[in-house]
Amino acid sequence: MENYRTYLTEEELPTHYYNLRADMEKKPAPLLNPGTMQPMTAEELEGVFCSELVKQELDNDTRFFEIPEEIRDYYKTFRPSPLVRAYNLEKVLGTPAKIYFKFEGNNTSGSHKLNSAAAQAYYAKKQGLKGVTTETGAGQWGTALSMACAYFGLDCKVFMVKTSYEQKPFRREVMRTYGAEVTASPSDTTEVGKKILAEFPGTGGSLGCAISEAVEAAVTREGYRYVLGSVLNQVLLHQSVIGLEAHKALEKLGVTPDIIIGCTGGGSNLGGLIAPFMGEKLRGEKDYRIIGAEPASCPSFTRGKYLYDFCDTGKVCPLAKMYTLGNGFMPSPIHAGGLRFHGMSTILSELYDQGLMEAVAYEQTEVFEAAEVFARAEGILPAPESSHAIKATIDEALKCKESGEEKVILFGLSGTGYFDLLAYQQFNDGTMTDYIPTDEDLAKGLAFVPPQPEEK
Amino acid sequence: MENYRTYLTEEELPTHYYNLRADMEKKPAPLLNPGTMQPMTAEELEGVFCSELVKQELDNDTRFFEIPEEIRDYYKTFRPSPLVRAYNLEKVLGTPAKIYFKFEGNNTSGSHKLNSAAAQAYYAKKQGLKGVTTETGAGQWGTALSMACAYFGLDCKVFMVKTSYEQKPFRREVMRTYGAEVTASPSDTTEVGKKILAEFPGTGGSLGCAISEAVEAAVTREGYRYVLGSVLNQVLLHQSVIGLEAHKALEKLGVTPDIIIGCTGGGSNLGGLIAPFMGEKLRGEKDYRIIGAEPASCPSFTRGKYLYDFCDTGKVCPLAKMYTLGNGFMPSPIHAGGLRFHGMSTILSELYDQGLMEAVAYEQTEVFEAAEVFARAEGILPAPESSHAIKATIDEALKCKESGEEKVILFGLSGTGYFDLLAYQQFNDGTMTDYIPTDEDLAKGLAFVPPQPEEK
Repeated sequence: MENYRTYLTEEELPTHYYNLRADMEKKPAPLLNPGTMQPMTAEELEGVFCSELVKQELDNDTRFFEIPEEIRDYYKTFRPSPLVRAYNLEKVLGTPAKIYFKFEGNNTSGSHKLNSAAAQAYYAKKQGLKGVTTETGAGQWGTALSMACAYFGLDCKVFMVKTSYEQKPFRREVMRTYGAEVTASPSDTTEVGKKILAEFPGTGGSLGCAISEAVEAAVTREGYRYVLGSVLNQVLLHQSVIGLEAHKALEKLGVTPDIIIGCTGGGSNLGGLIAPFMGEKLRGEKDYRIIGAEPASCPSFTRGKYLYDFCDTGKVCPLAKMYTLGNGFMPSPIHAGGLRFHGMSTILSELYDQGLMEAVAYEQTEVFEAAEVFARAEGILPAPESSHAIKATIDEALKCKESGEEKVILFGLSGTGYFDLLAYQQFNDGTMTDYIPTDEDLAKGLAFVPPQPEEK
Repeated sequence: MENYRTYLTEEELPTHYYNLRADMEKKPAPLLNPGTMQPMTAEELEGVFCSELVKQELDNDTRFFEIPEEIRDYYKTFRPSPLVRAYNLEKVLGTPAKIYFKFEGNNTSGSHKLNSAAAQAYYAKKQGLKGVTTETGAGQWGTALSMACAYFGLDCKVFMVKTSYEQKPFRREVMRTYGAEVTASPSDTTEVGKKILAEFPGTGGSLGCAISEAVEAAVTREGYRYVLGSVLNQVLLHQSVIGLEAHKALEKLGVTPDIIIGCTGGGSNLGGLIAPFMGEKLRGEKDYRIIGAEPASCPSFTRGKYLYDFCDTGKVCPLAKMYTLGNGFMPSPIHAGGLRFHGMSTILSELYDQGLMEAVAYEQTEVFEAAEVFARAEGILPAPESSHAIKATIDEALKCKESGEEKVILFGLSGTGYFDLLAYQQFNDGTMTDYIPTDEDLAKGLAFVPPQPEEK
């Protein structure tokens, strides 16, 4: 019998990030300067991001980027992550399918976010910067970044959406323990924050607003740059370590997946997981069904439009062409579990547009039902985000049960739900409800999308 | 260079629990029936515990107990746990010491407790029981048990200290997600609970009181038994998997520790970690310094007495001979992090009394300082309990720095602090204070210790 958990050795850890864009015939659309509607230049981006990361962001051709030894050493404090055969879930479902998951939650940030935080902190330090700024919602990304900054000796300023800062203080305290300065957003420490506070006194803030504050805090401070935990090309590049490890581990087991599933918010987890597999598919070497699982309450892929849009509500960021619900879209507050971003990675958006991957949307109660089944069978309490992928996996595994097919399913378990117990409590109490935006809600969200550039 | 993390393969996992008592010349004192002051018989214990566990509890001679395949399969969902070389901590401290830790926190219960919960749930199921009852404070043990019961298909009733139930609802929700029934203790579902509620209306409860309720709930229900997460011989037996894995991993690395350190509350973590090493020491094959690290606010080893005492405040449990602060001792509410039990494992008590191990007590602010240093260096946010061992390790490593000695230190990182963020917040805010019981406090705690049996 195969092992439950397969760990690569440290010698087998990836030495290079894999840049999926190099294998895409039609490249993802470039970021645009919203003023000129021209592609952002390296020079323009370097005011916001550190130089090496700008290079990675713009490079659509280099297939592999070497992972510096310092980052690899840091990875060894929490990687390799295990590839797990979900024997118990298979048994509970009674499916002939073979289910594997790549588990990224075994680190204090609780998710895959640390993979990119490590790289971004390292490059900032190497450039001689003093610190970095970022935004965080519930705090997964902020936690990851504060950990990486503590390790590399970098100052870390986190703008945390005020409602989360007040109502979910635990991740805030993790960040503080790692030495980060955590500010409730909107705050009076930035001009954009002051403006928002004046316009909407008493507002609980939003991710888009926190982004605007973090960017301002970076560009107005000597020796600081802004960093972002998802959506960007560079982030998907760093996250390719997930897929590279999973690919190698499956190869050692002599197993080829038929279906690869991941949850999608900004796309960093799915983009990282599928990278080497999608590369094979693009090069015509293999074929895989690839499925992104998203919340029905924030359905960027399944109900969004493929348009140029702002990534932030303050509209200080460049335009990205992506599947978007519009920067005016606000997911309902009853939506409990992450994946709240209105847009999507431009890489995944382009792949989806080309029909190279599918997407499916789930309501939150069915997602938590899947989470409970998984937790009881496999022991791990999954993050609500990751549970979208679990739900899709269970659905596919049950189809196999019906058809008798022994398909191999690989899914990404991007994180743990230890800081999402308020949502689990709602589910346990039976008070959790579902929300699906109406067509009118979606129209409102798209109302703020800027005029589109002409197609070339 | 040695790896950061050493994982055994699944084939190398222990196949047998190691019973340290078999190698003790002077055995730990037997549990006594408080009515007759005679050693508890198997028959008496079988009303409370399931039969196989009673056998393990009473057997001082059998060196190895085979781990049933079903338990080993379950272990594979979260074991082997990594043996980690703390390179980054060594660097931060500038010590020539080599520091290793055995990390037991990478499972949803967040600690080593799951090792024994697995065994206890399995044996209860095998005996055809319907369910088990237990008590829990902050919820680590209750979480572990609810996970194991979900896996083995067993009903799980947890009495949770009321203050924790209300103020720390997150682990309660984890337990509910795994299907456990969680009752705030004292409750009106038991006679002892009703009595305590009548006597102390509005009380927030205590661990000792929750034990009494759980035991009553087990013995008055058909098909139920009581299970306990620490202190007992059977628990230390199950926890020997920690030490057995660590021993084998170090052997593979060709490393022999000079000092072995663990935190001590009821003794399950340290007892498990040291088992095979202490065995070598008892058999005269090797010598190790072994150190238990405990809170100065609940200093069983360093300021307790070696006496027969009740394990619970309701006095429904047998008497155990142990280092005890007296069953009337209540740790100050300002003490934030676990290890609150007034007594200690009889095995460790006997070893300590024979001078085979040392103990050291720390105040909580210095423990959290050590936790912060560790978290920033090694990434993992440690449980406050485990941080006592970190503090002792740092102290020993700094002594090595002074003397220039390259000692090898192994410590047990028994768990993570993800559910202890209120305590971290106090520490981050600078509002955490220390508490050391006065001699008068200790005298009060011992006032309820029963008359001692005559020495034979």
